[in-house]
Amino acid sequence: MAPSAACAQYEGTLGIEFDLIARYFSRPVPSRFLGGGDDCALLPLAPGLQMATSTDLLLEGRHFLSGTDPNALGHKALAVNLSDLAAMGAQPLACVLGLSLPGADHDWLAAFADGFYALADAAQCPLVGGDTTRSPWGVVISVTVFGQVDPALALRRDAAQAGDDIWVSGTLGAAYVALRLLQGALPADPALLAATRPALERPLPPWQFAARLGGVAHAALDISDGLAQDLGHILDASRCGAELDLDALPVDPALRGLAPELARQAALTGGDVYQLCFTAAPGQRDTIAGLAAQSSLPVTRIGRIVARPGLFARDAASGLAALSPAGFDHFS
Amino acid sequence: MAPSAACAQYEGTLGIEFDLIARYFSRPVPSRFLGGGDDCALLPLAPGLQMATSTDLLLEGRHFLSGTDPNALGHKALAVNLSDLAAMGAQPLACVLGLSLPGADHDWLAAFADGFYALADAAQCPLVGGDTTRSPWGVVISVTVFGQVDPALALRRDAAQAGDDIWVSGTLGAAYVALRLLQGALPADPALLAATRPALERPLPPWQFAARLGGVAHAALDISDGLAQDLGHILDASRCGAELDLDALPVDPALRGLAPELARQAALTGGDVYQLCFTAAPGQRDTIAGLAAQSSLPVTRIGRIVARPGLFARDAASGLAALSPAGFDHFS
Repeated sequence: MAPSAACAQYEGTLGIEFDLIARYFSRPVPSRFLGGGDDCALLPLAPGLQMATSTDLLLEGRHFLSGTDPNALGHKALAVNLSDLAAMGAQPLACVLGLSLPGADHDWLAAFADGFYALADAAQCPLVGGDTTRSPWGVVISVTVFGQVDPALALRRDAAQAGDDIWVSGTLGAAYVALRLLQGALPADPALLAATRPALERPLPPWQFAARLGGVAHAALDISDGLAQDLGHILDASRCGAELDLDALPVDPALRGLAPELARQAALTGGDVYQLCFTAAPGQRDTIAGLAAQSSLPVTRIGRIVARPGLFARDAASGLAALSPAGFDHFS
Repeated sequence: MAPSAACAQYEGTLGIEFDLIARYFSRPVPSRFLGGGDDCALLPLAPGLQMATSTDLLLEGRHFLSGTDPNALGHKALAVNLSDLAAMGAQPLACVLGLSLPGADHDWLAAFADGFYALADAAQCPLVGGDTTRSPWGVVISVTVFGQVDPALALRRDAAQAGDDIWVSGTLGAAYVALRLLQGALPADPALLAATRPALERPLPPWQFAARLGGVAHAALDISDGLAQDLGHILDASRCGAELDLDALPVDPALRGLAPELARQAALTGGDVYQLCFTAAPGQRDTIAGLAAQSSLPVTRIGRIVARPGLFARDAASGLAALSPAGFDHFS
């Protein structure tokens, strides 16, 4: 079992001790269930048909702040799982919800349900079952999503090829800045918070675009742990390296007023971005631009895959330099 | 969304207020996802192939006692979901696990994982994904199972017919007595606890038998809320009634030393029984006995379905009388 990283940004670092916990559940899975990554498990159902599934367990005070707008929370609880489906190129099919609450706060419940259902409707991913119980603590949310994908078209982590373009969908860095503002780690700035908060609380994963990338893109995953770390997963799985053009990063426009170094750091390492990083042959550029236009989704080429292992970056001011995985101090 | 009742016995009565919570998630589900009950949601995948899925959210102190043997807990967390698959006649396919722990207690984890994997192996229901996070409170367990079933053979709640035999698999009452002993609601009796505790902590749902009942049985569900209440769900959904032969109830042999009234009460109303109650035409008796023998599973005929609505019962001492839904005081 690979722990889902969908909410790692809220969790901070779980640490070595917690990584060990996941190992108790890492016994071999029959090979027919494995995809090229671990955003989802894949269940073989019929020739040409696999079910992709992803599950997340979200706890008040750890994965979301106690005062979080319940409508946004309902939205996000589903969104983080839709993002895992998108990372596999799977089409949403249905979802189930487990919800445990300390009491019956009807305003909270109505808003949570509205947020959840609105996204479920938009993604055509109906809520088909679940479990509601009373919690002796705070709110606990468990969401499992199901999607379907042709196994021949499923996006994988291990399929990047030297020479591929590296792309990202959407923009980067806003969710990280909003979280740091809410945590008090950045000086209070109500205007900046208002501009960045939607990215944190109402992410909209590109499930439609992703479901069309099969056969076009090579490798893909979502950027829930931050671009540098998640791209690193592609590089590790595909046994290759990458050169990033830092000036090309689609930094969210809301970060324009920030110091450029901070904005770039947020774009490079900030998590909670429920968008895709994917690789594709340069011959696919027009196709990708066309698919993105159909979904009204910005996509940006930010570098290329190289044979040499490692993650390297350049900008106008500096030549090519290795990015240190431990915080990218070189650029901070 | 119908709340799963798999652990209602631990929860006690949630009350009207909590029932209201479930209503926030009861918006219409597209009809292609609905089966004849709500033990599982059914997802249409291909002609002749549906996926059945069930999810449970289990919280320390509410659904299980803090000192519960972790090996047994790992077993039961999966068992209650396998029971929901069995109630639909679905064959287990795979499962995912969300686990949130306050810390890394390695002995606890090893035992929990052993218990979970042992049952997953026995049921050929591999763990294919999940999510591990740190809990600010106690242990939280979320399990979602997937099974497959031919829609034409899926067991339903709403298919009982007047004249059907009513059957139960396994034995009744032991889990309830163990729970009451652990809660201190019955006088301490170490020998009785030792004899009944396995029924509470290590239930073994009859998934193999259940998957063969399609086309043989009419209606079915599991007895997680107690025989009388769950049979009532079949009667409501099928718009019919039932006459039970109380002397025929397969009271668990561990309850032999109890007062007969208490043993019968436990058998009739005690929940946490991850066995099946099902109905079938009398012409199927030999077939059912043969299927049960193949699975080394005791099955017992306990009454019959009648056209007259209501739940009635007789024993050697009394004539036929209506069973009151509110605790069956007539027999207590």
